[in-house]
Amino acid sequence: MLVYAPIAHMVWGPGGYLAGDGVLDFAGGTVVHINSGVAGLIAAILVGKRSGLGTENLAPHNLILTMVGGALLWVGWFGFNAGSALAAGGGAAIAMINTQIATAAAVVSWTVAEWIIRGKPSLLGAVSGAVAGLVAITPACGFVSVSGALIIGVIAGPVCYWGVSGLKKMFGYDDALDVFGVHGLGGILGALLTGVFAVSAIGGTGKSGLIDGNPAQVWLQIEGVLFTLAWSGVVSLVLLKLIDLTMGLRVSKETEVEGLDLALHGETIHD
Amino acid sequence: MLVYAPIAHMVWGPGGYLAGDGVLDFAGGTVVHINSGVAGLIAAILVGKRSGLGTENLAPHNLILTMVGGALLWVGWFGFNAGSALAAGGGAAIAMINTQIATAAAVVSWTVAEWIIRGKPSLLGAVSGAVAGLVAITPACGFVSVSGALIIGVIAGPVCYWGVSGLKKMFGYDDALDVFGVHGLGGILGALLTGVFAVSAIGGTGKSGLIDGNPAQVWLQIEGVLFTLAWSGVVSLVLLKLIDLTMGLRVSKETEVEGLDLALHGETIHD
Amino acid sequence: MLVYAPIAHMVWGPGGYLAGDGVLDFAGGTVVHINSGVAGLIAAILVGKRSGLGTENLAPHNLILTMVGGALLWVGWFGFNAGSALAAGGGAAIAMINTQIATAAAVVSWTVAEWIIRGKPSLLGAVSGAVAGLVAITPACGFVSVSGALIIGVIAGPVCYWGVSGLKKMFGYDDALDVFGVHGLGGILGALLTGVFAVSAIGGTGKSGLIDGNPAQVWLQIEGVLFTLAWSGVVSLVLLKLIDLTMGLRVSKETEVEGLDLALHGETIHD
Repeated sequence: MLVYAPIAHMVWGPGGYLAGDGVLDFAGGTVVHINSGVAGLIAAILVGKRSGLGTENLAPHNLILTMVGGALLWVGWFGFNAGSALAAGGGAAIAMINTQIATAAAVVSWTVAEWIIRGKPSLLGAVSGAVAGLVAITPACGFVSVSGALIIGVIAGPVCYWGVSGLKKMFGYDDALDVFGVHGLGGILGALLTGVFAVSAIGGTGKSGLIDGNPAQVWLQIEGVLFTLAWSGVVSLVLLKLIDLTMGLRVSKETEVEGLDLALHGETIHD
Repeated sequence: MLVYAPIAHMVWGPGGYLAGDGVLDFAGGTVVHINSGVAGLIAAILVGKRSGLGTENLAPHNLILTMVGGALLWVGWFGFNAGSALAAGGGAAIAMINTQIATAAAVVSWTVAEWIIRGKPSLLGAVSGAVAGLVAITPACGFVSVSGALIIGVIAGPVCYWGVSGLKKMFGYDDALDVFGVHGLGGILGALLTGVFAVSAIGGTGKSGLIDGNPAQVWLQIEGVLFTLAWSGVVSLVLLKLIDLTMGLRVSKETEVEGLDLALHGETIHD
Repeated sequence: MLVYAPIAHMVWGPGGYLAGDGVLDFAGGTVVHINSGVAGLIAAILVGKRSGLGTENLAPHNLILTMVGGALLWVGWFGFNAGSALAAGGGAAIAMINTQIATAAAVVSWTVAEWIIRGKPSLLGAVSGAVAGLVAITPACGFVSVSGALIIGVIAGPVCYWGVSGLKKMFGYDDALDVFGVHGLGGILGALLTGVFAVSAIGGTGKSGLIDGNPAQVWLQIEGVLFTLAWSGVVSLVLLKLIDLTMGLRVSKETEVEGLDLALHGETIHD
């Protein structure tokens, strides 16, 4: 994601040197997913919980459309990840196959985790696992081998499943779309594992990670994650507070019950 | 669109010379969108209004599917526009980025126009704006700069919004899918603005438009638009009249009330 | 489909020689579609008929989603067929245009056959025709000319329509998704017609089929089809019998009535 590159380049290491160029992020995992994850978390906390949470059924009402949306995301992500190679060559091919492998692996590992813990694997879990895998492989897709992509995907499933169940329950915020649990946590995981599994022979920038003899890369990735969390968290907090003080963050209780589709857009689904 | 190229090549200028080669149309805006727009308008007028128009709710009944369809169209259009470069190179990349910029811009400008005039921005407006932007950039996508694409998109939104509201109300035809308002008007707009914003340095045919020192191109584009409107309008009128005289243009009142899905295809949606 | 290539290479001819390299299959029609078709047929017979078949309406309940799924398949298939060229060059372009031509032709020929036999063309028929065309062109897409692709598509429509109507009725199995009628029969047809219409000048492996002076290729294709049917049929039978003897092949009658979504995945669609 060239458009976000300047942000990554602003990452400063603890010694005060400009460290952005050292962080590996092939297709923008740090600047898209960690960024959106923490911004979404701050927004979920400041906006507050939905009315009816815990008492009404707020599960996705149409899982077939969830599946359709997930399928569109998966295909579109090839453009995002492979397209970050900026040429229809070998680098794009590696990014594409790694994206496919990690995503498929995360579908399996999420649903297996769900099967063990919840008793039944679900379609919502399969689609969520796919998104978790897509998010986690995004920073790594042009730097790691296919076996590295497989491991990243396998790990991403259960970690993000914990993000949308255990972690969310632990802190009690209402992250309706699980942006932090999937994009935030998956983004952090992917950024760190890029520092572990990057192999210079794969190409990309030609830099190595932990398994290729460069453990220092892991620390650079941690720096990148911490900077993004702090930067996006603080800026989101300031912007949301400004909106709250001027036009307000939340609609009235009546509007919420009526539904935002009707109240704000004058639209509804009728059969 | 190579298959339609012979039509574009038949465009005759007022002086009687063969002018088709002079008209700029990268991906077939003239021969696909102006063509379908005017053919649809003639058909809407000859077939007549739907029963229940004005008294029943004939709005799209499922906006989520409208969104899914719009998303499929947007992605598919990259194949249409970038694919018209006939090679996976720089020309395709320019066509693709211009398509994305103009479409995104038209989503914003259509919904802002709707917000100002109707009071609320809508999802239907956002999807319609996307299609308007896609249509308008189609003839220009391989010839204009990114800033040219942005301006084309910004203009396409409100113009086509007027096409599906003001213009349609003014003449009173029942264009159910707004083919003329979006494809016809957007196609005409795109064809004219291609003559304004084409820059020879971008590539394509290497021809310039008004802002690049070649105001004569605007007149060539006007010729192309007028020829296409006349040619497609007349041929559509003749074909529709022939159908009307032989097998009839419209189903019976009973069939219309029963629904064409059931009457003509023996199919229905059941839950 | 590289991953399936080893299976194709195991094809032995009747004389005992290794014949796999002689079978033409550009994108895996034999090893994906004939394979899945016969496996699905064996499974449909062993699992048995759905409760309510013949007395309840078991038609697809939401044809719009059928259309959305068909559209996603069609686009995704370009990746499958053209991607089997393993490079963004002329071979991929030929595979893509042949895929488009054959698929569009099969939509027309299926719906025309349906129109003649059933009295009305249907959306389900159009989508089924598209899948039939996609399946039939898969082994041939990189080897045949555009006119060859057109003929393959035209033939695939009515043949597969007979597969999902006449053939299924004749033998009385309940193939709910028509996997054998479309993928099995379409796959067999495509494999055989690849041996008829392959033209060495198109590229691919540079091998010829019947119309290009090499009638022996048809026999090689028949060998490939027979081997795949036997191999996949026997292995599927063994695996399904093993499942039947250990964990069972079919849910209880109560679970079937309740619905597998709820019973096995704890999910439902609510409005």
